[in-house]
Amino acid sequence: MNVIEATFINSLKGILASDRILTLDEDILPYSFDGTAALKQRPGALVFPLTTREVAACVKLAREHNVAVVTRGSGTGLSGGSVPLAGCLVICLVKMDKLIELDEKNLTLRAQSGVITKEIDDACAKVGLFYPPDPGSMKISTIGGNVAENSGGLRGLKYGVTRDYVMGLEVVMPDGTAIFLGNKCVKDVAGYSMKDLFVGSEGTLGIITEVILKVLPRPKARKTMLALYDSMESAAETISAIIAAKIIPCTLEFLDRMTVQCVEDFAKIGLPTDVEALVLMETDGHPAVVEEEAAQMMALAKANGARDVRAAADEAEGAKLAAARRSAFSALARVRPTTILEDVTVPRSELARMVSHIADVARRHNLQIGTFGHLGDGNLHPTFLTNERDHEEMHRIEAALEEIVDETLRLGGTVTGEHGVGLAKKGFLKRQLGEGSYELMRTVKHALDPQRLLNPGKIFD
Amino acid sequence: MNVIEATFINSLKGILASDRILTLDEDILPYSFDGTAALKQRPGALVFPLTTREVAACVKLAREHNVAVVTRGSGTGLSGGSVPLAGCLVICLVKMDKLIELDEKNLTLRAQSGVITKEIDDACAKVGLFYPPDPGSMKISTIGGNVAENSGGLRGLKYGVTRDYVMGLEVVMPDGTAIFLGNKCVKDVAGYSMKDLFVGSEGTLGIITEVILKVLPRPKARKTMLALYDSMESAAETISAIIAAKIIPCTLEFLDRMTVQCVEDFAKIGLPTDVEALVLMETDGHPAVVEEEAAQMMALAKANGARDVRAAADEAEGAKLAAARRSAFSALARVRPTTILEDVTVPRSELARMVSHIADVARRHNLQIGTFGHLGDGNLHPTFLTNERDHEEMHRIEAALEEIVDETLRLGGTVTGEHGVGLAKKGFLKRQLGEGSYELMRTVKHALDPQRLLNPGKIFD
Repeated sequence: MNVIEATFINSLKGILASDRILTLDEDILPYSFDGTAALKQRPGALVFPLTTREVAACVKLAREHNVAVVTRGSGTGLSGGSVPLAGCLVICLVKMDKLIELDEKNLTLRAQSGVITKEIDDACAKVGLFYPPDPGSMKISTIGGNVAENSGGLRGLKYGVTRDYVMGLEVVMPDGTAIFLGNKCVKDVAGYSMKDLFVGSEGTLGIITEVILKVLPRPKARKTMLALYDSMESAAETISAIIAAKIIPCTLEFLDRMTVQCVEDFAKIGLPTDVEALVLMETDGHPAVVEEEAAQMMALAKANGARDVRAAADEAEGAKLAAARRSAFSALARVRPTTILEDVTVPRSELARMVSHIADVARRHNLQIGTFGHLGDGNLHPTFLTNERDHEEMHRIEAALEEIVDETLRLGGTVTGEHGVGLAKKGFLKRQLGEGSYELMRTVKHALDPQRLLNPGKIFD
Repeated sequence: MNVIEATFINSLKGILASDRILTLDEDILPYSFDGTAALKQRPGALVFPLTTREVAACVKLAREHNVAVVTRGSGTGLSGGSVPLAGCLVICLVKMDKLIELDEKNLTLRAQSGVITKEIDDACAKVGLFYPPDPGSMKISTIGGNVAENSGGLRGLKYGVTRDYVMGLEVVMPDGTAIFLGNKCVKDVAGYSMKDLFVGSEGTLGIITEVILKVLPRPKARKTMLALYDSMESAAETISAIIAAKIIPCTLEFLDRMTVQCVEDFAKIGLPTDVEALVLMETDGHPAVVEEEAAQMMALAKANGARDVRAAADEAEGAKLAAARRSAFSALARVRPTTILEDVTVPRSELARMVSHIADVARRHNLQIGTFGHLGDGNLHPTFLTNERDHEEMHRIEAALEEIVDETLRLGGTVTGEHGVGLAKKGFLKRQLGEGSYELMRTVKHALDPQRLLNPGKIFD
């Protein structure tokens, strides 16, 4: 690929107003990384389009000049999906922030890609509706980024992930044409589900400029509970018992000892710092069901060895507990200069085994790993606290990570549950998928983007 | 493509036992059509593999001989997806009927493609679990066929369609290699969601030999209600009122006057035959919620002009009413020699408009159309009662269908909500999708099956 030169910049000025084109070092610097540790690259220019037409024109120009294009929203990604390539064009969609329509009759919401995820749920809440996917970053991440990464969140077990709510997409293709995939129909089998190809494609197949989302009635009640354990096994047995009782809670979050300590240090909400596992449980829905399920879940936690189980007195206290869980990453990140957040996921039944494997790896390699995550859906975030300048420790982390990935795959899991492949996980992808499935993905990439214009070097080499 | 010759049959005998290879006219005849009216074609041979390895070997052989392959399950499809091509090889998967595993801890079920859909839900029911997708054909259709067609059913509004329950797939690719896509993880973003490309691909991209499905806890209670209307508008207003009340019923089925008359004639369950619309409503879940929602739904039906609203006294009566709805197609099919079942779908808000358009088209073209379908998800089945030998009437049906499709697309709908494109709808596909989206699908087909080996001429020309 070529790097951006002066003629390219001049042509850009024919597409967008100059104040929406950044080319100076000091302006571009904040866009040379995303939320992923230790990855940085200076792009050649950055543009803020307002319309799909502007995006399409930028892509056409980049194509003519054979300049790589990297799309970004708020840059909260955790796998390097929106880290620029040297000299590339970054298309930043944060100014395409119109919430176009909330259709209460069809339970759909239409928005440009740059709308902040939380604003979408806030708009829903005003009319008693609900957009369930709630990635940790939802207060700042964009819906387009969520769709491109197929973001998860804390409610995956009951409500699924972003993909489950995408009914339609507008996409600018690598040739600069815009197409719309999907519609407001609840059922549609007219040909292949091409929208599903773009959800989670991490900016490598097309640029998502607009989305139609499915929304739900807002649950009328919610109850938040906390269970404290002296052993991880007891926590895992509680989860199994809850599922065996045919209860699907909306949230079953877990923090290990180190994470609890860091969160308490950070948020000072009175968490005991000597527990092996803290489990945050939430049930939502009809008030009668919530009461019944909450009582059952608390009884099951006690019966399975929880040291202490308590329910939040009200929504406010529940929200405080949930916020503590949401602060886990920030709390851990304060401890050392570099925080490497992993995202391994296993079938729920293998969770206790996986957590104990991670603890064992940390011990053997003498590393600080705080683990938290989504117990209900098997999605763990072992978080390495380190210093990227300590090369010796970074080598030990690499070795530890290899072992964690091996065990994840042995247990039938995935190297990334919700953060994406990007740059961070691409070295592991073939091992997980196997040659056939990996090559199939490459075939699709090559067919849709033969020039390798969009986010080249991400997901695959 | 070539047609099957003697050398090919001889090679087949090296792959499968001879009693699982059909070549004689009288044996093959029952497999020369599927559930779609007026489509028939004699294949060159038919095989019943028992294993993925046998399927793969058959595909490799067909590839070497450049013989087209059409896959079928029970042949209940309604768009011609499993109608053979002249002289082709039909791979019939009904003998791959092993239910491999029901994993209660992970809420997953693994089965070979030939398992009957109802058997899957029956196996779930035994342990308090639930497989929600319930296509009309579920007593005889195979899960592989359901996945290949992304089948819908009566519970789409609340529970979604087959795609929403597919976690993993084993697929034999056009080159005869078998790959596995997906796993038991609730969250997985390791690369493109290739499984979603195969769900609903109608046998044109690969042969699905095994599936991992997500299952749910079985709802503890269910209540079935019937509302009778003198106008379709009142029925549609009831649906809008139910959604506005933030209730998502599991079933909202609708029969028009002609369909009610045929069903009553067929099933003799005491339905009044002078209503303009009969709506079957079901709510399921926690008993307290079911009671509350059922009362609300009945009140809303009355408030919106239902002539009569009644609740089934018990599960048995509810099941009888649901069975009456399920008999709609069979009941209509008795009236005239040929039954052409359509599958147009519009956003829910446009339903009343669509139903009245269909009635108007029937009047103007002097045709018998019985319409029934899924009010909750906008999926209608206008059913033409005709005689395929009456060419003049068939021409009028063609013209009527054009008008129905035009209105469907004008209202933002799809030409097929749950039956697939196959042969029946491929003439309308480009009009719905637009050039860009249509060409994108063709690009994917070409990339994955460059030899056009699998189900050629289906979906696209």
